Amino acid sequence: MQQQWQPEYADRMQGMQASEIRELLKVIARPDVISFAGGIPDPDLFPRSEIAEAYAQILKDKDASARALQYSVSEGDPDLRDWIVGHMAMRGVPCIPDNILITSGSQQALEFIGKLLISKDDTALVAAPTYLGALRAFAPSQPNYDTLGFHQSNRSAASYTEAAHANGGRVPFAYVVPDFANPTGETLTLEQRHDLLTLVRDIDCPIIEDSPYAALRFDGAPVRSLQALDVEACGGIDASRVIYCGSFSKVFTPGLRVGWVCAKADVISRLTLIKQASDLNSPAINQMVMAELAKTLYDQQVAKTIAAYRIKRDAMLAALEAHMPDSIEWTRPEGGMFIWMTLPEGADTAQLLERAVNEIGVAFVPGHAFFADKSGRNTLRLNYSLPSVAQIETGIAKLARLLGA
Amino acid sequence: MQQQWQPEYADRMQGMQASEIRELLKVIARPDVISFAGGIPDPDLFPRSEIAEAYAQILKDKDASARALQYSVSEGDPDLRDWIVGHMAMRGVPCIPDNILITSGSQQALEFIGKLLISKDDTALVAAPTYLGALRAFAPSQPNYDTLGFHQSNRSAASYTEAAHANGGRVPFAYVVPDFANPTGETLTLEQRHDLLTLVRDIDCPIIEDSPYAALRFDGAPVRSLQALDVEACGGIDASRVIYCGSFSKVFTPGLRVGWVCAKADVISRLTLIKQASDLNSPAINQMVMAELAKTLYDQQVAKTIAAYRIKRDAMLAALEAHMPDSIEWTRPEGGMFIWMTLPEGADTAQLLERAVNEIGVAFVPGHAFFADKSGRNTLRLNYSLPSVAQIETGIAKLARLLGA
Repeated sequence: MQQQWQPEYADRMQGMQASEIRELLKVIARPDVISFAGGIPDPDLFPRSEIAEAYAQILKDKDASARALQYSVSEGDPDLRDWIVGHMAMRGVPCIPDNILITSGSQQALEFIGKLLISKDDTALVAAPTYLGALRAFAPSQPNYDTLGFHQSNRSAASYTEAAHANGGRVPFAYVVPDFANPTGETLTLEQRHDLLTLVRDIDCPIIEDSPYAALRFDGAPVRSLQALDVEACGGIDASRVIYCGSFSKVFTPGLRVGWVCAKADVISRLTLIKQASDLNSPAINQMVMAELAKTLYDQQVAKTIAAYRIKRDAMLAALEAHMPDSIEWTRPEGGMFIWMTLPEGADTAQLLERAVNEIGVAFVPGHAFFADKSGRNTLRLNYSLPSVAQIETGIAKLARLLGA
Repeated sequence: MQQQWQPEYADRMQGMQASEIRELLKVIARPDVISFAGGIPDPDLFPRSEIAEAYAQILKDKDASARALQYSVSEGDPDLRDWIVGHMAMRGVPCIPDNILITSGSQQALEFIGKLLISKDDTALVAAPTYLGALRAFAPSQPNYDTLGFHQSNRSAASYTEAAHANGGRVPFAYVVPDFANPTGETLTLEQRHDLLTLVRDIDCPIIEDSPYAALRFDGAPVRSLQALDVEACGGIDASRVIYCGSFSKVFTPGLRVGWVCAKADVISRLTLIKQASDLNSPAINQMVMAELAKTLYDQQVAKTIAAYRIKRDAMLAALEAHMPDSIEWTRPEGGMFIWMTLPEGADTAQLLERAVNEIGVAFVPGHAFFADKSGRNTLRLNYSLPSVAQIETGIAKLARLLGA
C-alpha cells in the first residue's frame, strides 16, 4: 500500500478556527431550545411569492434566462448596480456604476477588502466588541488588531500609527458597524462619526463602513453615513476614504447572497479583480431576481421588516426590564437585530451558556467571541429577530431566573 | 476641503491583473464577431424549464422556501452532498458527505485550496499551458511556479523539491486538468496518471485534480481519475493526496455557480472554515435546485450535451483539416470544449488576434495567457461549444485565409 498523505497547511491557517456562532447554530437546532443566538432574519418576512414570481418571469424568457444561467461579468448585474447607484445617491453618496461591485453578501466584501488592503504585520483597527464575521474574513490576510474607542477615547492618530509600526506594519484600515452594530445594537452619534473621520484622516488610512442594518431603524432620527459625510467633505466618492458595504440579507433574504461595495472607482476595479479570481461572478440569476425585488418592493419590505422587529425588540426590552436583576445592564437599540448584555465583572457567559442550554433550553452568544483579544467574558449577545414574542417573553424570564433574579 | 485618499494596496495585489480572457469577452460581445474565445457552454442546452420548475416547487413550499432563502451551513446542501457522494462512488471514489464541500463553482474551490496550501515563497507545479483561471485563483497566495512535464519528462521529484527550496519554500501541490484540459483539450493517459502520482508521492505533496469536463467524453474509453487511482493505492479517501474539484457548470449551467471539492475529511473541514470566512455559504436555493436537477436529469443532460458538442468538435476539426496550412498543428480532443493550435515558431497570436477581430471578425484566446511564464506566443485556444456549426465553418475558413492558406 502506498504512503498516506499527512497534510502541511499554509501559515495563514493557524489563525482560522471554526466560528463559535456557526458551530453553535448546529447544536441549538434542537426544537425545544429558545434561541437568541443567531443573527438570522425571520423567514416569515421573506417575500416568498414575489421571489417565486421573479424567478419564473426570468426563466420563461429565452433571452433573460440565457443571461441568467450563463457566466456573467464579475462586477455584477448592470440593472442591480444601477438601482444601488440610486439608493446610495438618496443617502447622500452620488456615484456611478463604476463605484459599485456586487458581492456574495457583505461577508465576501469584507474578505475581499482584507485581501486588498492588509499586508503581513499590518494592524487593523476594530471596535471591541466587533462583528466576529469580520474578524474571520480578515483572518486569511493575517492582521494584528488594535482597538478603536468611541467614548471619549484619548488615543491619538499618532498612537495608532506608532503601535502599528511597532508591530512591523501600517494601519491598513479602521473597520466599524456604525448603525445598530453587531453585536451591541448601538449606533454612533454624528459627533462620534466626525471624530472617527478625523482620526482616519490623521492616520491617513481608509475606513470600512459595514452597514447591513442601517435601513432597519425603528425609532429616532437617522444619522448620516460615514461615507456621505466624507464624500461631502472631500468633494466626491472618488476622493473618499470610506469603503461602504451594503447588503440585501437583512431586508429581503440572506439566501440569495447579494451584497455590494460602494467605494472609489480604483478600489472597485481592484476588488473586481479579486472577485474574478475568487469565484468569477455571483450567480446572475439571483442578482436579476434581487434587482426586480429592489425596484418593486424595497420600501414596502423595509417597512414590513421594521414593524415586525420593532414589536420583538420592545418585547425583549420589556422582558429584560421586568425580570433581570439590577446588577445586569443592556443596550437599548433603535434598530437592527441585537441587544448586548453586560453581567457583573467575573461572570463567565461561556459557562452560563452551557447551563442555559442544558437547564432552561435558552441560547445566546457569549460575548468574548466578538473581541479580537477574547476579553469581555462577562458579556453576551441577544438576538430578537428570529424568536417569536412568546419565546422572547418565556426565554428572557427563564434566563433572568438562572441569573439569580 | 479635506484631503483626498490615495490608496496603498497590499503586497499581494501586485500579482493580480485583469484576466485577458474576461476583458476580451467584453470587447468581442459585438454581434458581428464569431467568437472561439470564451470557455462558455451553449445556452441552448441549459435545461431551462426544469430549472424553472425546480425553483417553483421549492418556493411554493413553506418549509423548503424558508430553508432555501435563509443562511445555511457552510459545507453545503445535505441532499446535494449526498448525490455527489454517490456520483464519486460510481467513479471509483468511495466517500461520505464529510469528504465533500460545495463551492461557488470550481473557481472558488481553487482559490480556497490556494489559501489552504500555499505559504509565501512556495513553488506550485502547473502544466504549461494550464488553466489561466487557476493561476488567477492562486495569485492572492503569491506562489512561484515550476513546470509539470507529462511527455517523458526527465525531471525527478528531487529536482522539483530542490528548485522549490532554492525559491525559499516547499512544493505546496501539483495542479492538473487531466481530462480534456483547458486549454489544450488533451487527456492524460493512464500511464501518465500513474507517473504523475508517483511523482507527487516522491515529492510528498498533494495534487489538485481539476475535472470540470470529465463527463463530456465524445469518443474513446474513459481513463480512471487520479483520485480513484490514488484511493485504490493508498486504501481510502482519507489517506489520499488527491484533492478533486468537480463542477456542474459545464453539464447543467454555470449560472447557479455550483461546484464541489472531494478530498480527505481533514482537508474538507479546513476548506469549510475558509468557506465560512469567505462568504458564509453558497446560496441554498441554487444548491437545492441543483440537487433536484442532478437527481432527476444528470445522465440525460450529459448525453444531450455530448451529442451537441461532438457535432461542433467534428465541424471544427473538419474545417481545420480542410482549410489550415500545413505549417499549423492542432489537438484532436476526445471531449470537452477546446482545441489548441500551434503556429510556426516566431508567430505572435496576440498580434494575430487584433488583426483577426478587426479584419475578419473572428476571435480566439492567444496562448500565452495560459503560461505562468507568458511563453507560448505562437499558440492559441479555440472554443467550439458556444459558436454554431455554421459559424465554426465560416470562422475557421476565414482564420485559415488570414494565416496564409
